[in-house]
Amino acid sequence: MTNDSNPEDRNQTSPNTPRRRGGRSRTAGDGPAPVAQPPFAHHHRWFAPTRAVSDDHLEAIHIASLSVLQDVGIDVLNPQARKLLIEAGAMGTADADRIRFDPEMVMACVASVPSEFDLHARNPAHTVTLGGDNVVFSAVASPPNVSDAHGGRRTGNQRDFQNLVRLSQHLNAIQIHGGYPVEPADVHPSVRHLHATFDLLTLSDKAVNAYSLGAERNQDCLEMVRIARGLTDAEVETETSIFTIINTSSPLRLDIPMCQGIMEYAKRNQASVITPFTLAGAMAPVTLAGAVAQQNAEALAGIALSQIVRPGSPVVYGGFTSNVDMKSGSPAFGTPEYMQSAMLGGQLARRYGFPYRSSNVNAANAVDAQAAYESVFALWGAVMGGANLVFHGAGWLEGGLRASFEKMVIDADLLQMVAKFLQPLVVDDATLALDAIAEVGPGGHFFGTQHTQDRYRSAFFAPMISDWRNFETWEEAGSPTADQKAAALVPTLLDEYQKPPMDDAILAELTEFVARRVSEGGVATDF
Amino acid sequence: MTNDSNPEDRNQTSPNTPRRRGGRSRTAGDGPAPVAQPPFAHHHRWFAPTRAVSDDHLEAIHIASLSVLQDVGIDVLNPQARKLLIEAGAMGTADADRIRFDPEMVMACVASVPSEFDLHARNPAHTVTLGGDNVVFSAVASPPNVSDAHGGRRTGNQRDFQNLVRLSQHLNAIQIHGGYPVEPADVHPSVRHLHATFDLLTLSDKAVNAYSLGAERNQDCLEMVRIARGLTDAEVETETSIFTIINTSSPLRLDIPMCQGIMEYAKRNQASVITPFTLAGAMAPVTLAGAVAQQNAEALAGIALSQIVRPGSPVVYGGFTSNVDMKSGSPAFGTPEYMQSAMLGGQLARRYGFPYRSSNVNAANAVDAQAAYESVFALWGAVMGGANLVFHGAGWLEGGLRASFEKMVIDADLLQMVAKFLQPLVVDDATLALDAIAEVGPGGHFFGTQHTQDRYRSAFFAPMISDWRNFETWEEAGSPTADQKAAALVPTLLDEYQKPPMDDAILAELTEFVARRVSEGGVATDF
Repeated sequence: MTNDSNPEDRNQTSPNTPRRRGGRSRTAGDGPAPVAQPPFAHHHRWFAPTRAVSDDHLEAIHIASLSVLQDVGIDVLNPQARKLLIEAGAMGTADADRIRFDPEMVMACVASVPSEFDLHARNPAHTVTLGGDNVVFSAVASPPNVSDAHGGRRTGNQRDFQNLVRLSQHLNAIQIHGGYPVEPADVHPSVRHLHATFDLLTLSDKAVNAYSLGAERNQDCLEMVRIARGLTDAEVETETSIFTIINTSSPLRLDIPMCQGIMEYAKRNQASVITPFTLAGAMAPVTLAGAVAQQNAEALAGIALSQIVRPGSPVVYGGFTSNVDMKSGSPAFGTPEYMQSAMLGGQLARRYGFPYRSSNVNAANAVDAQAAYESVFALWGAVMGGANLVFHGAGWLEGGLRASFEKMVIDADLLQMVAKFLQPLVVDDATLALDAIAEVGPGGHFFGTQHTQDRYRSAFFAPMISDWRNFETWEEAGSPTADQKAAALVPTLLDEYQKPPMDDAILAELTEFVARRVSEGGVATDF
Repeated sequence: MTNDSNPEDRNQTSPNTPRRRGGRSRTAGDGPAPVAQPPFAHHHRWFAPTRAVSDDHLEAIHIASLSVLQDVGIDVLNPQARKLLIEAGAMGTADADRIRFDPEMVMACVASVPSEFDLHARNPAHTVTLGGDNVVFSAVASPPNVSDAHGGRRTGNQRDFQNLVRLSQHLNAIQIHGGYPVEPADVHPSVRHLHATFDLLTLSDKAVNAYSLGAERNQDCLEMVRIARGLTDAEVETETSIFTIINTSSPLRLDIPMCQGIMEYAKRNQASVITPFTLAGAMAPVTLAGAVAQQNAEALAGIALSQIVRPGSPVVYGGFTSNVDMKSGSPAFGTPEYMQSAMLGGQLARRYGFPYRSSNVNAANAVDAQAAYESVFALWGAVMGGANLVFHGAGWLEGGLRASFEKMVIDADLLQMVAKFLQPLVVDDATLALDAIAEVGPGGHFFGTQHTQDRYRSAFFAPMISDWRNFETWEEAGSPTADQKAAALVPTLLDEYQKPPMDDAILAELTEFVARRVSEGGVATDF
């Protein structure tokens, strides 16, 4: 029923990646030992997020964004959205795009946003909470290209899409999908959302995203998630089960499909992550305060629309302000400016009581030191800035133009490191270890003590990638660099992947739904 | 007068690195344009450091370390140090190593430590302040091995030492030397400190370190710095001009040369950075709270000694707790445990009002993604943990067993990124840019605005290494990875290096001092 038959009939991965054997059960002698991963877990921030500016300056940014909304306004390209906004007190006319927002109306909308909500997965163990002190990591979303070490860089396709979904399911560090981990460009756009969402819901049991590319797609994907979760129409509205990323068309525009996405999902109590793409120096002022003020104005406009449609519907405030490289005009990520913007975005989100989204991003063209340091700087900005959702958590390369299998594995290790950092440092008699210190005494060694022996196996983070062997041993092993180690792990992890179970009746209903919608021709592609 | 004649007579670098042309003046057509670097600057933390534990837990760790000092005690191997400690109220006997510390005596010593002090460089523009909200970056110190992309890995030697000193001088991100950026193992240990300090003081004008390997070395190095700065004996005691790293011999020991270093430099008002090397699971408890409690006990013991010798003498509290890899026993760095320990160390230092030292470290064997991500995680722990001195800031690889030319260049870029992050986000009418936002309006573009044109050249951090070109352009340029770009920059940077001027009389005095001390045979090597 997909363009390329059922995934389980296709045991062949990319011709350029080693063959995988599907999710069969493993027996002794069946191959290498499973890659050790910490189990799927929920993470909580134990520290106060970093405040990027003083309270006075935060207020100045808040006021500036309200003044942008009131004095400049937002072009809202969707007539139905304009109608709802005007009925709610925004200033504008039905036949002109420009909508100006009264500050009090905006703040009334802000007040009804839930500070946290659950995003339900097909597997209840994989349901996550967005907001509060929760930190959730998603897979990369939406690159048009994909690469692996064996096959190089290529246009996104369904086979790589499916393998990245499998990897996202198998890597415990990845808690939710971000969307399509790579665009399956070989599936026709009219039915792509049907096949891709079928794959996401059957190859994985983690929470999923729908692209806002017209209301019908939002509706189809929600219906598929409803079926997959075995819920009634009424039930799905009590349990947020899908989210959509809303990128404002910066500066200061909400386009038609984005308005439709907000309205469709607010109406059904599903989540919108409203994320202006305010690249300082291009779509936003070259100064960060102005770029973030504009980000804030655009986010508040989208959030206001969601709350007008349904007060209390779940939304996330997305911060994505970065800067362009002023030499090439290319976007830069994981820069010092990106870090400050990420922290400032979080401070604004907390001012309003919104869940906050930031990202794990970089602009590197290879899985090299640059990819790694830009990613960790981005994580630093996100995590210390109080992000509840770290979007594009694993697999993003090349400023989002490419998904990388190896980067996804390395990123999963980075996320596991952050997750371990998010486990609070325990201080009690057992961890203060005064008896062990006295027992060992000056000049001794702790390894042999009972205190160490009782704990050493699980005391410390154990990485998938980092190589801590001494140089000679590492050299004898072929001097593997981190990207090479990740490349070696990709087929192993795909081999270890287990397809999560799905009830036969649900699978039949889901299959029937996709078949029917495909036979109807899917949806128009002239959005 | 050095083993290998005057550096300026030796225009040949390592046989494995490209030839450098020394510090001659540059004219048009003389080679590639200088590598763009931000100028040497002083950095201040604008945010509150992250608190690793609650105040109650911090107090529990403090009390635990006082109890270790009182009940277990420290083996102080130097009789003179024991004598001073016992006279000041510590419990022990002259003929046994073990010294136990009364908590009140320790806290009285804590009270006299200056919360910040200036570390003077030969060039006053390179003098730095340690403590308060200052953040200072040093070069790597003390690896026994060195590598570059062309010559591979080799034992440390004077030629590479000198080139790393030149690079440390030329890279503005590096504010002070850490010690020897690689051990010049081909210079005899009896005179190594003389030749190496001569090189540090003549090839560079940034602040320097002396190794505490016996009191005579401390004295020789201080004398050389006094000469280089043109000060009298009395004057050098009013201006801290050199520092030494004191590593306690964990667990719970202060060895003879470390005691001598503390005493020699406290006596002369020079700085000791007291840094226990408490590797959790090996030289310290496997639990971080206990490892840091032991770190704190050891640091307090060393600091107490410094303040007994001279109340108010400058010291820095060093945190270096990390964990071992429980599979191989190798030390691991830049781990989640390292980050938490770095933050906890800072919180303890602030509790006492001490300047705080942390480090930029990793355990990678190559200049790959691992080297980069472990380094940035370490920087994250250090900078957010409130480090005033980020030691080993540039060039460290392989858990400190190797200095890397390429890693030094990449690290300099990382430090420049952190330095830019440490510039506060400016919020005022000009940066909020409401006029520019109104001028551009919905759907416009900011690049052409006057607001952007006035600022774009210097608006954003401009990296030495990060490659933000699109994939096609980058591929046409030969697909250079970050380590390859750094390798290409090394000879350029060495070529751009300018030897800082030194007064002829001072150079003559320094040269004469070294010649005399060398002719005397230097110092004994049986420390």
